[in-house]
Amino acid sequence: MTYTLRSALIPVDDAYATVDVQIVDDRIAAIGSDLPTVGTAIDAENKLLLPGFVNGHAHSVQFWQRGLIPQLPLELWLADVFDTAPTELEQTYLGALGTAIGTLMSGGTCVMDHLYVIAGHEVESVAAAARAYKEVGIRAFIAPLIQDMPFVAGYPEGLKTLPHKPYHQSTAAILAIMETIVTELHEPDAGIQIAVGPTGFHRCTDALFEGCRDLSDRYNLCRHIHLLETKAQKMLAQERYGGSGVKHLQQLGFLDHRTSLAHSIWLDEPDMAILAETQSTVVHNALSNLRLGSGIAPVLKYLQAGVNVSFGCDGAASNDGQDMLEAIKIGSLLHNVTDPDYQHWITPRKAINMAAIGGFTGVNLADQVGSLTVGKQADLVLYDLKNLSLLPRTDPVKLLVLGRPTAAVDSVWVRGQRVVADGILHTVDASHFTQTVFDYSQGYSKPHYQTIHQVEAHYRRVMGLTD
Amino acid sequence: MTYTLRSALIPVDDAYATVDVQIVDDRIAAIGSDLPTVGTAIDAENKLLLPGFVNGHAHSVQFWQRGLIPQLPLELWLADVFDTAPTELEQTYLGALGTAIGTLMSGGTCVMDHLYVIAGHEVESVAAAARAYKEVGIRAFIAPLIQDMPFVAGYPEGLKTLPHKPYHQSTAAILAIMETIVTELHEPDAGIQIAVGPTGFHRCTDALFEGCRDLSDRYNLCRHIHLLETKAQKMLAQERYGGSGVKHLQQLGFLDHRTSLAHSIWLDEPDMAILAETQSTVVHNALSNLRLGSGIAPVLKYLQAGVNVSFGCDGAASNDGQDMLEAIKIGSLLHNVTDPDYQHWITPRKAINMAAIGGFTGVNLADQVGSLTVGKQADLVLYDLKNLSLLPRTDPVKLLVLGRPTAAVDSVWVRGQRVVADGILHTVDASHFTQTVFDYSQGYSKPHYQTIHQVEAHYRRVMGLTD
Repeated sequence: MTYTLRSALIPVDDAYATVDVQIVDDRIAAIGSDLPTVGTAIDAENKLLLPGFVNGHAHSVQFWQRGLIPQLPLELWLADVFDTAPTELEQTYLGALGTAIGTLMSGGTCVMDHLYVIAGHEVESVAAAARAYKEVGIRAFIAPLIQDMPFVAGYPEGLKTLPHKPYHQSTAAILAIMETIVTELHEPDAGIQIAVGPTGFHRCTDALFEGCRDLSDRYNLCRHIHLLETKAQKMLAQERYGGSGVKHLQQLGFLDHRTSLAHSIWLDEPDMAILAETQSTVVHNALSNLRLGSGIAPVLKYLQAGVNVSFGCDGAASNDGQDMLEAIKIGSLLHNVTDPDYQHWITPRKAINMAAIGGFTGVNLADQVGSLTVGKQADLVLYDLKNLSLLPRTDPVKLLVLGRPTAAVDSVWVRGQRVVADGILHTVDASHFTQTVFDYSQGYSKPHYQTIHQVEAHYRRVMGLTD
Repeated sequence: MTYTLRSALIPVDDAYATVDVQIVDDRIAAIGSDLPTVGTAIDAENKLLLPGFVNGHAHSVQFWQRGLIPQLPLELWLADVFDTAPTELEQTYLGALGTAIGTLMSGGTCVMDHLYVIAGHEVESVAAAARAYKEVGIRAFIAPLIQDMPFVAGYPEGLKTLPHKPYHQSTAAILAIMETIVTELHEPDAGIQIAVGPTGFHRCTDALFEGCRDLSDRYNLCRHIHLLETKAQKMLAQERYGGSGVKHLQQLGFLDHRTSLAHSIWLDEPDMAILAETQSTVVHNALSNLRLGSGIAPVLKYLQAGVNVSFGCDGAASNDGQDMLEAIKIGSLLHNVTDPDYQHWITPRKAINMAAIGGFTGVNLADQVGSLTVGKQADLVLYDLKNLSLLPRTDPVKLLVLGRPTAAVDSVWVRGQRVVADGILHTVDASHFTQTVFDYSQGYSKPHYQTIHQVEAHYRRVMGLTD
């Protein structure tokens, strides 16, 4: 399809310009004044045009667990998450639909889904999510979440102290499944990529990291993990490697320009230098980090060290909101209390760049998408500046980021395809989806959490929490 | 009017109950199962019923400045705010309308407006805001923001170092205007109360505090100030009183059960003990505190010390969002990173209690409103649990607080009057308001900030910021 957007407002340097934009096939063909109309004319007057954002870290299946899990730190929260994890492929599909809709309707055109897979149905799980993303028309990276160490490995002194069985799959078996997923479902030309996603060093062996690294090299896949999300994980790095988990990942050859690292809260300055040197990306999930009490990621220091930082919503069990604009707002404002010098603070314009080109840098697509640049793929979002939540007309980018936009997305194009128009998703019937989720969840009963009772006393002891 | 809400979901202890609720005149007349229908029957099935929240600290006129002011710390931000303050009474009226709409549509039924008044038109300013609140039908406390020291008094070493003139009004003149406002516009029976609102000790003399205290005693008015919002204000307390600003306010007799204290970030434990002893209320404005880099208020410590804490949006120039649910979410989650023991964290149920009964405690109305209690005034909000942002049906209160509700308010009653129905404000035409604001703000041009250039070097020096 071909479109000409008429009179869109775009940010330029410290000001704004009103421009026409031609979209031809999947590309931005021209940006300028008084361009001839090609294809469908779109009235973009009083609308703000921005590149699409990347939701750099998500767990789509947790859609079913939003509003569910009590306020607990990661290590105990995760026990509750696993105890209540959905087990049906239909839920995997619907969870991805919900995540895609939430991302698109808040300015995102791409999601990195660190996907929980159903044991024994790993390939089908990824296929179900991929089907949802294709139907909605969002760009997606699916990183099946894998580990090869038991649950208790995630606790300091856990393997030594807590009862456990070996992990139910061998490292070789996990890697074989991963390769099947890649050969069957990796479709970059259709906007669906598979990435390697070992959960993090706290529950993965070196062999799993090395196997994933090799798969990534063989198929040119992105790499995505959780990194040092909690103080407990930092303690584990010390316990397991006698030092820095980041240094260890570098030594394994896992960190490169295709690697994105969710959370990255408990790093020190030498660790930051490694991220900058390896061109790794930090995905900042501020809301999840607050909900789980994980800490405040040292994002201003990352930026000063030259580390690329993007934003993510994380899963809905730890960020029950799932709105990219909220993730960007809190993910940029939060750091103002970490540095008294306001000259270091993240401005709204910087924040949208982090979310757009920073996000696409994290998934190794920055040369193809992520900015309002002629020749790039058209992942574009129009925001309605006549929406009350974006009024008065002061500084549209500032109000978009610092305000609380409500139903302010007017149109979205992904890879040149218009998937949202006049605020309505056109590829999937959102009302039908809403009714389906309502029907599905009517039988909700109070969950019975069991695992937490097996680990809570240990957790409190090793973390030095007194009763 | 009389209503019977049928089959509303309400939180009870750790669970939920489905109940009918009768509203007769301005009161909750009955709560129970299978109540007879009186008046208009309201289908509240699949709707969550909660008491209305109090937006415990607002500056309605800043509605015009949302999205406008750069990211700066309070002392510099305020220079920009004053340089661009609206000067027309119509803007005062519309700003209050916008604040009322934002509060109502996010679950609030009462606002404490620390109102910027137009110099020379103080009474008319308050009258304009009061008119807006009456039209919308929200409960409002209007505390005209007063001071009797010059702008530079707000900077450490400011009066000593920075050029300035005496404040343009005498303390006696300010207090006389305040008394006129009270006698003309204080209408508790109409839901509009005047409160005394000296901005804070940083720009107010002891005489102004004493005069406000006496007015408050004479007319039984609430008292509302900014307290120790920034490190600079803590430095000022040391400079001016040789110690604690809180102790000083206590000695002036300003702190009592009618006193609410916005921000309250830089307090130590003896200060907290004074707040508990005097039954003062802290109004927590987390989003504003992040945007201005003011710090994280020690809210968990307040709660442990027995201090009443409620939530506020603050003005739109420092919290461009103005959504009570966002203020409650961030205002409760933020503290998880300040205390590793999750047993101290604020649960969603605790948070809505802080926002409702905690808020009404702060405005000295807790015996009359603020909970689902028979005999209390009916300030009630129904949330639509079929709204996608509140699905799936896990735990509605948790998802309301931890999620990102979008247009989820179905109905609002204030003092028994239904002002919102089916998600639509019925007292004022919100579309017309939106168009008015759009028209008003079309002429926006880049603001010229001047005052900041006169104070920035001083600020950086006294705060120890290097260039």
